[in-house]
Amino acid sequence: MGLIPREEAFFDLFEKLSEKLQTAARLLVDTTEHFDHLNDNAMRMERLEHDGDQVVHEIMARLSRTFITPLDREDIHRLASALDDVLDFIEATTEHFVIYKIREATPPARELAQVIAKQVEEIASMIAQLRKLEHKNISQHCIEINRLENQGDRILRGALADLFNNHNGASPLEVLKWRDLYEIMEAATDKGEDVADVFESIALKNA
Amino acid sequence: MGLIPREEAFFDLFEKLSEKLQTAARLLVDTTEHFDHLNDNAMRMERLEHDGDQVVHEIMARLSRTFITPLDREDIHRLASALDDVLDFIEATTEHFVIYKIREATPPARELAQVIAKQVEEIASMIAQLRKLEHKNISQHCIEINRLENQGDRILRGALADLFNNHNGASPLEVLKWRDLYEIMEAATDKGEDVADVFESIALKNA
Amino acid sequence: MGLIPREEAFFDLFEKLSEKLQTAARLLVDTTEHFDHLNDNAMRMERLEHDGDQVVHEIMARLSRTFITPLDREDIHRLASALDDVLDFIEATTEHFVIYKIREATPPARELAQVIAKQVEEIASMIAQLRKLEHKNISQHCIEINRLENQGDRILRGALADLFNNHNGASPLEVLKWRDLYEIMEAATDKGEDVADVFESIALKNA
Repeated sequence: MGLIPREEAFFDLFEKLSEKLQTAARLLVDTTEHFDHLNDNAMRMERLEHDGDQVVHEIMARLSRTFITPLDREDIHRLASALDDVLDFIEATTEHFVIYKIREATPPARELAQVIAKQVEEIASMIAQLRKLEHKNISQHCIEINRLENQGDRILRGALADLFNNHNGASPLEVLKWRDLYEIMEAATDKGEDVADVFESIALKNA
Repeated sequence: MGLIPREEAFFDLFEKLSEKLQTAARLLVDTTEHFDHLNDNAMRMERLEHDGDQVVHEIMARLSRTFITPLDREDIHRLASALDDVLDFIEATTEHFVIYKIREATPPARELAQVIAKQVEEIASMIAQLRKLEHKNISQHCIEINRLENQGDRILRGALADLFNNHNGASPLEVLKWRDLYEIMEAATDKGEDVADVFESIALKNA
Repeated sequence: MGLIPREEAFFDLFEKLSEKLQTAARLLVDTTEHFDHLNDNAMRMERLEHDGDQVVHEIMARLSRTFITPLDREDIHRLASALDDVLDFIEATTEHFVIYKIREATPPARELAQVIAKQVEEIASMIAQLRKLEHKNISQHCIEINRLENQGDRILRGALADLFNNHNGASPLEVLKWRDLYEIMEAATDKGEDVADVFESIALKNA
């Protein structure tokens, strides 16, 4: 197996994508904590999402040209798609803050941003280990990502119950806006779980 | 071919998942007919959904470790995912009854629960035949599942038209809640159709 | 390679599906421009969508029976699914015009219908080239499809901002209806981008 050339470029590209994702997650937290940064952050986020698309495109193009890949083709495809999805939902959050002319982040929005950022840190740790195929801590990171997804789900349920039942005079349109926002943010954590699933599958094959 | 060891465990796991699904579908019907059972049923449903996740996880883990599988790897993956999706949408229904503090099931909600339960019975019949690869009745079950999906779609369309156009003084938030509920229930029947698609594909390959 | 029989039938089926898609896209544009055609057009659309399902079903059935395929199995599967999704969202648009008892298309709805129709023309050009594997213009068509998807996204963002913030006395239910409609139409353009992705992948493999 030592004679088969490794396609190191895939790992470089995943690390590049992971950096975009970390920057995006930090921008999201910053936005929910300093809402006056929204317009600047949303513009930077749009560029990050665009840069991420380019990296995913490079991964897919390279996959089509490469005969022997360092990981299963299907896993490379699924991993790139899942990382791209997390980034897309993070970007969609700031985009919807702008479209819906939101003026302040609510407590559940701030909590969900923290959950997303923590998941992204776990993802970044796993991507850093991908190259060396040191899978020893993968299952711990996956457990943590799943725990965070459950936490995101509980925050969403609480926020929706509160929004629909004790809406404190908020108009139906305000309810509709926040419902969209919470669901977009929770969808980001679902996609984080998809990333963990791919890593688990990679780790099992190399156990 | 007789010398290749069969991985009987996959069939055991699919039967286990099918049982969880049948129990969940019956709980959903019970909930729409006896709405005072909601809180108890929702808690049982959450456990069922969690148990189902565990079984799916076992299937995927086994798939990663197994070289020769009794069905195409892709079909095992797709079947497990599709069954999991049906269970997820059934659970999401009772969950949303709770979150939205619904007090009574409407007629379309009761009808949709019946459609889902009938689809799940068809699915269970097909899974029972999977082990013996007796595919003779597969296409009949698939036709029935597709017919039920069409019926679910008609119930949804009628319910939405009624909800948005003759809403009898229901508030916009009530409309929004029921729209979500009907769409979640109809999504369960769409996922039932995905299950049928996988079975058709398996049957064709073994024709 | 010349001895391997080509499965020309796949190309015939994709061309058939492409024709259904083009007819549907033209019907959608006609509906948004002549809204009194809605009921007739919605019935024709339902038949087109049903016919499209049949063709997709034939493609999948043939894929299960065919050992050597003229394109990668995965690409045939993904292409058929993505084309089917575009058709489904086009049909869902006229269906929701009916369910929601819409009386007139708005300017963004007309613009989105045009964007969808232009994407479908690009898709039809690529499918016409599929048989001869003349992939020379694929990347140009893909760039155009992606540009149209971006345009669709900008129309959606503008329409949502307008709808939620300057709703000119529209009731919350009207806002909810149009939000659904714009998102369904924009989803059609996302699926058009998925079609382009499959073509790019096919072109790269045959470069």
